[in-house]
Amino acid sequence: MRRSWSRRPPGILAGVGARAGIVVTGTEVLTGRVTDRNGPWLAEQLRIMGVDVAQIVVVGDRPADLQTSLAFLADTGVDLIVTSGGLGPTADDLTAEVVGAFQGRSLVLDAELEAQIAAIVSRLSAGRGWRMDPVATSAATGKQALVPAGATVLAPVGTAPGLVVAVTDGRTGPPVIVLPGPPRELQQMWPAALADQAVQAALADREELRQQTMRLWGTPESELAATLRQHEAALSGLEITTCLRDGGELEIVTRYGAAAQPAYDAFVAVIRDVHADTLFSADGRTVDEQVADLLTAQGLTIATAESCTSGLLAARLTEPPGASRYVLGGLVAYSNAAKQQLLGVPAGLIDELGAVSAEVAEAMATGARARLGADVGVGTTGVAGPGGGSIDKPVGLVYLCVVGDGTAIARRISLPGARADVRARSVAVTMHLIRELLGADARLSP
Amino acid sequence: MRRSWSRRPPGILAGVGARAGIVVTGTEVLTGRVTDRNGPWLAEQLRIMGVDVAQIVVVGDRPADLQTSLAFLADTGVDLIVTSGGLGPTADDLTAEVVGAFQGRSLVLDAELEAQIAAIVSRLSAGRGWRMDPVATSAATGKQALVPAGATVLAPVGTAPGLVVAVTDGRTGPPVIVLPGPPRELQQMWPAALADQAVQAALADREELRQQTMRLWGTPESELAATLRQHEAALSGLEITTCLRDGGELEIVTRYGAAAQPAYDAFVAVIRDVHADTLFSADGRTVDEQVADLLTAQGLTIATAESCTSGLLAARLTEPPGASRYVLGGLVAYSNAAKQQLLGVPAGLIDELGAVSAEVAEAMATGARARLGADVGVGTTGVAGPGGGSIDKPVGLVYLCVVGDGTAIARRISLPGARADVRARSVAVTMHLIRELLGADARLSP
Repeated sequence: MRRSWSRRPPGILAGVGARAGIVVTGTEVLTGRVTDRNGPWLAEQLRIMGVDVAQIVVVGDRPADLQTSLAFLADTGVDLIVTSGGLGPTADDLTAEVVGAFQGRSLVLDAELEAQIAAIVSRLSAGRGWRMDPVATSAATGKQALVPAGATVLAPVGTAPGLVVAVTDGRTGPPVIVLPGPPRELQQMWPAALADQAVQAALADREELRQQTMRLWGTPESELAATLRQHEAALSGLEITTCLRDGGELEIVTRYGAAAQPAYDAFVAVIRDVHADTLFSADGRTVDEQVADLLTAQGLTIATAESCTSGLLAARLTEPPGASRYVLGGLVAYSNAAKQQLLGVPAGLIDELGAVSAEVAEAMATGARARLGADVGVGTTGVAGPGGGSIDKPVGLVYLCVVGDGTAIARRISLPGARADVRARSVAVTMHLIRELLGADARLSP
Repeated sequence: MRRSWSRRPPGILAGVGARAGIVVTGTEVLTGRVTDRNGPWLAEQLRIMGVDVAQIVVVGDRPADLQTSLAFLADTGVDLIVTSGGLGPTADDLTAEVVGAFQGRSLVLDAELEAQIAAIVSRLSAGRGWRMDPVATSAATGKQALVPAGATVLAPVGTAPGLVVAVTDGRTGPPVIVLPGPPRELQQMWPAALADQAVQAALADREELRQQTMRLWGTPESELAATLRQHEAALSGLEITTCLRDGGELEIVTRYGAAAQPAYDAFVAVIRDVHADTLFSADGRTVDEQVADLLTAQGLTIATAESCTSGLLAARLTEPPGASRYVLGGLVAYSNAAKQQLLGVPAGLIDELGAVSAEVAEAMATGARARLGADVGVGTTGVAGPGGGSIDKPVGLVYLCVVGDGTAIARRISLPGARADVRARSVAVTMHLIRELLGADARLSP
């Protein structure tokens, strides 16, 4: 493989500056029963600060494996290690002990912390009305108040404290920030961890690392690769990664040092020029943000009628805080009867053309708009699979329609993948159709 | 920290038998722009085969970092390494090159593979109606057909081939399976990878490793910890991990060798005895599966009326294939007007008690049931935040109601966390209320 454009400018991204490693613990994460949100969140927080993260290691609840992972990251020469998880009251929660041992520190009971945790547990259990066995509670509290000697304790957000554990005197190695697994607790505790003196000292060498994102809709990855190859000379100093996501969106994320800002500006100009017809976001804003902003700016309301996507579109439209300003509601018309009763789709239309048809998608969009008195109506109907497909209407066939005041955009798509993929991708395409109807493209250019 | 019950029986789980390591590549995964589904999926597939996975390393698109990760896993003595991602047509896709170099093999062009990929790309682009530049396409195809000399090529599912790359003669080390990043492609290619002779030889020592799951709803983690401590003697030979998930569900996953089956059976009996009131799944089935099965078995239909959860409940109920048998549809009544128009919630009720109230939740459930002619109706209304809270009705306050034929279950809950947490947890609690209404508890005992 020939590399035809510069990805890794020496000295800016991989050589100097502060680097950190992340260890995510939990057999439930390793085996996929729980999706890790902490590793990427921490990586992003560190990036914003100018700290580069090379690896996230996901490891089960086994002390030897956790120890090996800490040693691996320390050996790569990182300036800081951050762990998440393994601070709960059950015996498989062993991060404090393993990290303590790794840094040469044994566990001691922090009596003040124990009292603090006991007070929290007592308050929480009262609020939930759960029966709590005092002996069990006391044992759990005592376990969570065992901390490596000399570690900085970060006040609990839930019941588990965080820790900053530096190596014992006379040894060298990065400090380890130990954070709880629940994302909310980890995120709230993060500022306190960063404020720690040992952490500040470890990250003293950090350099500003900028990150910018562009988004294309409808350009194949191979076309973008050609553009990058062709403009190779202009891209020096940029670390560019591309990613096909959300059923067709091409995301271009570029990281660079401050000195390469002119190169990035030139890169944006190239993409604006070559892929003008598919570049929908030059500033990184997502289609969700654009739709929310467009609806708000134009003072418009929206209503949905969903069959195959079955609530996913309404859920996505209402994700942003304040979505109640523009989302009036929606109808999930899964059965044919519901399409008729809730949306006024004529029974004859369904009988003649089938529930999965362009006409029914439009009738659903129009129905949602009328029933809820919204400015914009959206209809989705398709075969999500795995059953229900036919030769004429195979699994993955989806009709989408967005209707406004005297305008409409309809689309027939054939999506690959399993049921969940078809549903999620249908929603993604629909978001772009809404954006199109609202005239986002006209507003893209500065 | 004293360990009071056996978690890691020596020789069964961590010592002998085949072990594998996983490397997930992609800056978009490392930084959280894309959630990794491949690492956990691969770990689970390997587990089922009796291959233990100790670590998943997530690494960005940088050759040095990928190389370091491969070396780390090889050094831990794993018998097999599996990578995902980095096989696309852009220059940041460099897994084949790095793995080849790691195994001592340089890249060669596979002309047959090149023709195969060209045919796939041509077919795909025709189906999507995308304009494809022939020069760009040919460069992309040529790049994807460069494979390490002597590697086994796994036929593409998308456009990227997979690889099995053994070390060159005269060196030792585990073979590396190289798979594409898109989960669908990776999963479809997996059987071919396993069938490879070098992989079979590497995993010859694998031992059966069983995994069973129990689920509790309403038991705090500290209570379970006490149970585990108390019955320590009976748990020898079991690797037990517990995980609080989905806003209150306590999941107990146990892994063990075949010889420890009696110990696991005894453990189940203990949990059945001590936590009889909260154990809702002794066989690992999720609440989603239970609700689907209960509705199907009883021949009942369901309809939803959602405010704060805004489609998420309908989407979750329709996740299983065949959900159209029992889900008629739903109404997302986000505005007060929608609650009145779509569900017939009396305006006076909203004026008097507020949209977030037990009475409105019940009126919504009853309304959904009536409007769609369903056997079961569900209503959700609450303050998802971050705005909209008050002293009387703070962010996180949610009212839920499930109504059947002459029966109803209502719940008022106060949920911590951000908007997305409140929405997701409300849905989780609602699933349990539906299960309760359908009488799941009576059916749990064998």
